[in-house]
Amino acid sequence: MHRRFAGRHAAQGWHGSAAEFGNSAALLLGDLCLVWSDEMLHTGGLDAGTLARARPVFDEMRTEVTAGQYLDVLAQATGDTSTELASKVACYKSAKYTVERPLLIGAALAGAPAEVTDAYSAYGLRLGEAFQLRDDVLGVFGEPAATGKPAGDDLREGKRTFLVAAAFEAADPAQRAELTARLGDPTLDQAGVARLREIITATGALARTEHRIVELTEAARRALDGVALDGEARGALRELAQAATHRRR
Amino acid sequence: MHRRFAGRHAAQGWHGSAAEFGNSAALLLGDLCLVWSDEMLHTGGLDAGTLARARPVFDEMRTEVTAGQYLDVLAQATGDTSTELASKVACYKSAKYTVERPLLIGAALAGAPAEVTDAYSAYGLRLGEAFQLRDDVLGVFGEPAATGKPAGDDLREGKRTFLVAAAFEAADPAQRAELTARLGDPTLDQAGVARLREIITATGALARTEHRIVELTEAARRALDGVALDGEARGALRELAQAATHRRR
Repeated sequence: MHRRFAGRHAAQGWHGSAAEFGNSAALLLGDLCLVWSDEMLHTGGLDAGTLARARPVFDEMRTEVTAGQYLDVLAQATGDTSTELASKVACYKSAKYTVERPLLIGAALAGAPAEVTDAYSAYGLRLGEAFQLRDDVLGVFGEPAATGKPAGDDLREGKRTFLVAAAFEAADPAQRAELTARLGDPTLDQAGVARLREIITATGALARTEHRIVELTEAARRALDGVALDGEARGALRELAQAATHRRR
Repeated sequence: MHRRFAGRHAAQGWHGSAAEFGNSAALLLGDLCLVWSDEMLHTGGLDAGTLARARPVFDEMRTEVTAGQYLDVLAQATGDTSTELASKVACYKSAKYTVERPLLIGAALAGAPAEVTDAYSAYGLRLGEAFQLRDDVLGVFGEPAATGKPAGDDLREGKRTFLVAAAFEAADPAQRAELTARLGDPTLDQAGVARLREIITATGALARTEHRIVELTEAARRALDGVALDGEARGALRELAQAATHRRR
């Protein structure tokens, strides 16, 4: 959206910076969406008792995702390259927000028993992390035609993902120096992107990340074993596990 | 807050731009406050029926203020200098958000009759606009020691306030050219600020704005005449009208 607003600014020949206008307008749109998501929850026709069960989960989710975003910004600033911090960011920013909490909101609305909410938590955290790891791999190795993003954008931004952290952990001194120099360089060209891809592959970080995606996805599926779910819900959760981790964009 | 986070970044010698880190962190803190304001409303011990009365007013307020902020950003971009648009921005961004809606939330929580909510609306919109006009005057003529902001900051930002719009409306061609050239110039120095103050005063825009503050404040007070309010509420609203418009910061 920030690009679309910036484009409108440029096309109309308005005053000031088109990019800044785009950023301001997109941020305000984000605020509106945040406000409206909450309004929709409350005006969706749910009775007060049902709503009261879901509300604490919804509140916690919004605080967590904001804290996760801050952790992400902080990690890029401090330059912390540990896989431990990368996993923590992925947990708060992604796993909880994209999979675990939405399932728990549904469970709360439906008045599900603890056995189901526990299973949803275990499934959601693992699948959510796998989803984020797939995102990280696509951000570095994805095809622009499929992802809709320029190749290597995550590298130019210097995102501290598990994939990158794993490369740092296994890098020799020369590789480490090159990773440090090139990651987060906004002028990184295609040759620079290709070189970082080589290092990430050569250190085994790509294989380690792919292996972890498989492990997490299997663990997510196993978390549902033996839990009393109806067939439709179980089928949807199996499909979700597949769709979240086997994708090209 | 963005300056405080940027200062922390600079003091620690972290990677990347301290200013950008400050902006990102402060935006996330703003999101948290937005989310928490809503959470506090719902966890403050109000019963479901009372909450249901206040909720639509709260929802509308948040949408209005966001739209008002966008109108403000848009007016700066398009360079629209009409007093009409400046008043509209002040209405949505400030009058409704800072005075009218908070009163109406209170009225809804208390289950006030229509006579009271109508009077609160009339009082709030007028006083809220007067409050904003006082803000605009302080943004140009305020003493930095009292306001805590550098002198002329609003002029450097190029804010399209009623005060500035009134100056444009009454400016002769030479004054208009100078206003256009200097407003929004981030490098404006003290002499430039002094020159813009002179033009704003010479065009009668300052006097017109001060006159409008008095008119609006009196109209706000009159809106409460003959309405059944208890003495404490009436006294607080009179004090609020005074505090919002007679202030140095």
